Amino acid sequence: MVNKSNLALLNAPAPSTERLEYDDAFRLTEQEIQKLLKTAPPLIRPQTSHLAQASGKGIRARALLACALGRDGLVGPGAVKAAAAVELLHLATLIHDDVIDDADLRRGIETLHVKFGRKIAILCGDYLFCLAFDLASAIPPREADHNKIGSVLPSYFTEICLGEIGECSNTGNLELTEREYFKIIYGKTAALFQAAFHAGFLLSDEPPAAADIYVETGKQLGLIFQLADDCLDFISSQGKAKKPVLADCRHGVVTLPLIYALQTDKTLRGKIKNGLSEQELKAAVLAAGGIEYTKAKIREHRLEAERLLSIAPGSEEKKSRLRFLLDKAAAV
Amino acid sequence: MVNKSNLALLNAPAPSTERLEYDDAFRLTEQEIQKLLKTAPPLIRPQTSHLAQASGKGIRARALLACALGRDGLVGPGAVKAAAAVELLHLATLIHDDVIDDADLRRGIETLHVKFGRKIAILCGDYLFCLAFDLASAIPPREADHNKIGSVLPSYFTEICLGEIGECSNTGNLELTEREYFKIIYGKTAALFQAAFHAGFLLSDEPPAAADIYVETGKQLGLIFQLADDCLDFISSQGKAKKPVLADCRHGVVTLPLIYALQTDKTLRGKIKNGLSEQELKAAVLAAGGIEYTKAKIREHRLEAERLLSIAPGSEEKKSRLRFLLDKAAAV
Repeated sequence: MVNKSNLALLNAPAPSTERLEYDDAFRLTEQEIQKLLKTAPPLIRPQTSHLAQASGKGIRARALLACALGRDGLVGPGAVKAAAAVELLHLATLIHDDVIDDADLRRGIETLHVKFGRKIAILCGDYLFCLAFDLASAIPPREADHNKIGSVLPSYFTEICLGEIGECSNTGNLELTEREYFKIIYGKTAALFQAAFHAGFLLSDEPPAAADIYVETGKQLGLIFQLADDCLDFISSQGKAKKPVLADCRHGVVTLPLIYALQTDKTLRGKIKNGLSEQELKAAVLAAGGIEYTKAKIREHRLEAERLLSIAPGSEEKKSRLRFLLDKAAAV
Repeated sequence: MVNKSNLALLNAPAPSTERLEYDDAFRLTEQEIQKLLKTAPPLIRPQTSHLAQASGKGIRARALLACALGRDGLVGPGAVKAAAAVELLHLATLIHDDVIDDADLRRGIETLHVKFGRKIAILCGDYLFCLAFDLASAIPPREADHNKIGSVLPSYFTEICLGEIGECSNTGNLELTEREYFKIIYGKTAALFQAAFHAGFLLSDEPPAAADIYVETGKQLGLIFQLADDCLDFISSQGKAKKPVLADCRHGVVTLPLIYALQTDKTLRGKIKNGLSEQELKAAVLAAGGIEYTKAKIREHRLEAERLLSIAPGSEEKKSRLRFLLDKAAAV
């Protein structure tokens, strides 16, 4: 039979039935991820230990945990496992992204493929993908007849792959429309936020009919997050972003600030084709109002998220935690 | 909400509740795979349509369907979906393997990364991974309180990744032991056969206590399959194998025929280090009895599989179908 050592680890700790405060659940999620990475099978431990040295901000885990809050103001232990699974899945996609973009820095440390080679990095991404699905599939549903987390997650993940493929297929495509851009970022970013919201919702005690409102709010959070990220790629410094900035234009990824700039500055397309330095491109996008336009879009989606939250069932604590995440994601 | 068009397709055909003859179920499995590949979302359809041009022999699907045979001599529609999922998963691993090995031919056609580039191939592999999990997670269990297919598959897949990593980490390692070799091929090949047997078993009406016997038989089939494949890499022609032969030595993959040859021919290690052509290596391995030794190992595992089948519950038809697959896999 298959070695279940990883799962056993997650199953072992005491709080397996205990309901938890939100902050405790988030801390436990971070600990679980660290434990899974640091005690992975020896074959892959050099890679996972390297990854354990740097962690993300955990916004997907926080979103999942907030959505999982019950009427008692607490979350169940399944939510911690689901949050760890979503973060591991995110990590898996980052590893493959970095191989594809040949990025050398992620979360302030060397990327996996730079340190261990492309082959091992691809396989390590695959391993974390499987580990995440394995974790998710072991989470019992809230009620026997409810959907299992493990059953709802995979379909979002196919959307993520399609978003990535959409981005990849449109490398250097200066004709990319705003509509196509939104379709791509829905897949590559918002679908995982939806998955986190959906999983959290399934572990909460909200009425089943409210699923769509929460999943849609997750989409808005994801879009806001990506819009802000695309602004920051133009205006942040590398130290602050903990990853290379102006990476999008370097890799030919066409994002909304540039799409808008191309619309308003009719000379820009020609200039780009004739060759423009990164700094010149940045200046042109800023001058054409690309950042301001993208910020306005962020505000639009923030308002839509607010509207959804106002009609969603759920405690004030839950909504206030989700608003906090929305504001954090929107900060540019 | 996420677009479920792929799943809808599988759900649409008539035989969704009908139980099927084995051969019909296999044909339907092949059709489902073709349909899923040919009607994938437009973004990825060029790639999946290319893949649809060539199919494998479907030994994993056949194994799953055989294990799923009920006392009525038929299989349920869930088994067709599970068999399609296992084959898609296999396809996903092949795509990533080919990127890693930079292979240019697979199943007689150009590999995906040669035709569409490495980036798209990595993402397409990820997509098929997710699609396979998605399919598997939608299959209802035989009884409400039974394990779902979607819950048991992922842990086998982590083993597959570990096997691949083991192989990759031991590239060119002439000190690889027979024991380490078996550990690697257990992961990279036998775990997926185990997954197929386990999934089929869960959809059958065998007593739950017999799960281990079937899963273990799956492991034996997988080991036999890989041992034979490793022989064929030395002795087959490209036309017959529909993939490049002598690929293992070209990529530094050390397999049992070579491990045995290194043990018996003490001059071989030095010759390899000084540079040996592929044909010279082949001749040396054959002369040292590496193929004969590996064939003897195949017979050992074939006997163990026979012993397991003799104590397994299940109809004679089921056992005879599994014996047929074992013999087919063992053919060198």
